[in-house]
Amino acid sequence: MLPEPRLQQLLSWIDQLGELGIEPGIGRWRRAFSAADTRAVELITGWMRAAGLTVRRDAAGNLYGRRAGKLTGARVVATGSHIDSVKNGGKFDGVLGALTGLAAVSHLLETHGDPVMPLEVVAICGEEGSRFPGGFLGSFGMVGRLDDAELGKRDLQGITMAEAMCAAGLDPGALPGAVRTDLGAFVELHIEQGGVLDRKGIPIGVVTGIVGLKFVRARVTGRPDHAGTTPMDLRSDALRGAMEIYLEATRFVERAGGASVITCGNIAVSPGATNIVPGLVEFTIDLRDADAGHLQWLYDEVYAIARRITASRGLGLDWDVFNDVPPVPCAPHLSEAIRAACGALEIPFLDMPSGAGHDAQVLAQLCPVAMLFVPSVDGRSHCPDEHTRPDDIHRGASVLAETLYRLAYSPSEVTV
Amino acid sequence: MLPEPRLQQLLSWIDQLGELGIEPGIGRWRRAFSAADTRAVELITGWMRAAGLTVRRDAAGNLYGRRAGKLTGARVVATGSHIDSVKNGGKFDGVLGALTGLAAVSHLLETHGDPVMPLEVVAICGEEGSRFPGGFLGSFGMVGRLDDAELGKRDLQGITMAEAMCAAGLDPGALPGAVRTDLGAFVELHIEQGGVLDRKGIPIGVVTGIVGLKFVRARVTGRPDHAGTTPMDLRSDALRGAMEIYLEATRFVERAGGASVITCGNIAVSPGATNIVPGLVEFTIDLRDADAGHLQWLYDEVYAIARRITASRGLGLDWDVFNDVPPVPCAPHLSEAIRAACGALEIPFLDMPSGAGHDAQVLAQLCPVAMLFVPSVDGRSHCPDEHTRPDDIHRGASVLAETLYRLAYSPSEVTV
Repeated sequence: MLPEPRLQQLLSWIDQLGELGIEPGIGRWRRAFSAADTRAVELITGWMRAAGLTVRRDAAGNLYGRRAGKLTGARVVATGSHIDSVKNGGKFDGVLGALTGLAAVSHLLETHGDPVMPLEVVAICGEEGSRFPGGFLGSFGMVGRLDDAELGKRDLQGITMAEAMCAAGLDPGALPGAVRTDLGAFVELHIEQGGVLDRKGIPIGVVTGIVGLKFVRARVTGRPDHAGTTPMDLRSDALRGAMEIYLEATRFVERAGGASVITCGNIAVSPGATNIVPGLVEFTIDLRDADAGHLQWLYDEVYAIARRITASRGLGLDWDVFNDVPPVPCAPHLSEAIRAACGALEIPFLDMPSGAGHDAQVLAQLCPVAMLFVPSVDGRSHCPDEHTRPDDIHRGASVLAETLYRLAYSPSEVTV
Repeated sequence: MLPEPRLQQLLSWIDQLGELGIEPGIGRWRRAFSAADTRAVELITGWMRAAGLTVRRDAAGNLYGRRAGKLTGARVVATGSHIDSVKNGGKFDGVLGALTGLAAVSHLLETHGDPVMPLEVVAICGEEGSRFPGGFLGSFGMVGRLDDAELGKRDLQGITMAEAMCAAGLDPGALPGAVRTDLGAFVELHIEQGGVLDRKGIPIGVVTGIVGLKFVRARVTGRPDHAGTTPMDLRSDALRGAMEIYLEATRFVERAGGASVITCGNIAVSPGATNIVPGLVEFTIDLRDADAGHLQWLYDEVYAIARRITASRGLGLDWDVFNDVPPVPCAPHLSEAIRAACGALEIPFLDMPSGAGHDAQVLAQLCPVAMLFVPSVDGRSHCPDEHTRPDDIHRGASVLAETLYRLAYSPSEVTV
């Protein structure tokens, strides 16, 4: 476990970053390339240097602290997360991963000296899309996806991403140098945003993968009829059909087990009068699972349910998949290192998917990735009352340090 | 059965009225106290006089054709329906009842001479609410409900009902004289707007009553959550709860049998994003039945279903009955007269409730009422393709004549 002074230092770092980017009437809103972002980079630079790390910032705004490894030419073991926040956000989402990474690496260097493999902490720029649409700014820079289209994106003030980079003292022309080709592993710690760990009282989530998703816009067509005069058995009620589809699909997904989720987040009825049987209904389905094959099976079955119910009720069906993102599995050997670290520290853990997106899913294009979650009270995130308890931070940082030890100091235990 | 020339005359009357009130780009829209309404009154006045009826128009715009009865002081047997139309309406809704009434009475006078009881045909004013909100203008006049609030209602041009009456040559000050206290029976023929008779191929519906209704606005409160990170078993999904309520209530109403109908015509979701579990849902329920006790029982059970499902899912429930209209039963002895008329003419009939409102439900405050339905092709109404076949008009007018004979010429058969 991290010694108490190291924990207190980490909590102090979190509080210091938490003060940055608070705007009157809005709350915390620390955007990429803002003055608050620059100030955060300055603070972390100081902390990294004090820990004995070599610091550099790439053209995409990512801040690295590096300690070379004893093994020449070895691939880098990296940890970290993003340091921007959503509008009216909290103190922990992202920041906790960057700072526990720094605390863990500081502890390892102090305790064990130079690692075998090169060890890096990264404070990633602009993951939230809270300034430029889409997010993943920094990790896109690391994988070489910050093309002209991305650089031309504008914030609410009309400033392009390239202009914002220049204003922050960065050079968009140097972006090719931001691409990493030398990573051997990336481990990201993040708060768990679904409330599972907090409700179950389990301190660590070992992320099996970041879920893929399919978003469907379904349109069910029936016949508008007088709600008073039309007997139940003569109706073509589009809303009843839509409800049956969603409830049956939901029961199916639940019965299928696992951690799949299905959501109908919106539904619109036409003509939408109290006394007219709905003739047209549009609704959305959000279906997610961490396993590509399982997700496709669930999707196929949900679509079959929709076709069967509309056919049996004489309703029309239009079905449009408007968002289709494949899952990103975490590397089993890295997840196993996290589990082994939990075992060594006698800290309970739970295997679980990540239902939200994270930088690790982008960096999976470069190297094997893994994630560990710590509890967020009531699963709150993206809001000011987002909170992770000091004890849970302590356990998370300790498991992260133990994991990084296995990867960077004792690489024979796992294949990096 | 009405002789063929009488049927042809009736069909011609329907066509002639159908030409009135057609507005470019809108379709047929024959509003109360409009020039088209005045022209319709003029035409029907002529047809009534030609049939040997004494004609008068009351201050509410209702047009009566009367033949005195042989029995002094006897109560009036009346038939008819409204002659206005909805916007972009058809040729049959309302008009058919007024004109089959006139055809039937004309036939009876020609065939049997003076009735025993006074016999009246009434072309009722403004039932549809297609000019002033709420409708039932003429029948409200007959029962004394055209008070200052009603007379102050404005049309889309800002003209009050009282002003429109004056412009049509009527005197709102004379409205007390429009109140009827001498009616003994009112029989209304109307098209059947649910498609039941047309699909079953039955030419006559004997209306058991006009349904009562309860309109509910339900609000289900859950908790908005991230659709990716929140496991199914940790959600408080307001939309899922609302759907379960409506589908279970619908299955219950269907299992309860009878002709009850339940409809969810509108539903609105908040926040209404694809990837957020709905935290708040508002939806409507339209519940109708022709029997007051049965309607109350259904309503109580539907409400219990809503309370049980929201309680079991930890959801909040607000429940607001915003419209509550009791059923109006038809008079059994009058409905029996219609059935006997069908029997005498060997015409099949079906007992059924009326799911829509009609003038008869207002006039039930004055006297026993009954209604008979004729088929409307595909149940279409309130649209230009509203259509009732000549054969069905023939049967309907003949049954109406036979019924009126029993009531006005042979009153010993039924107690009027």
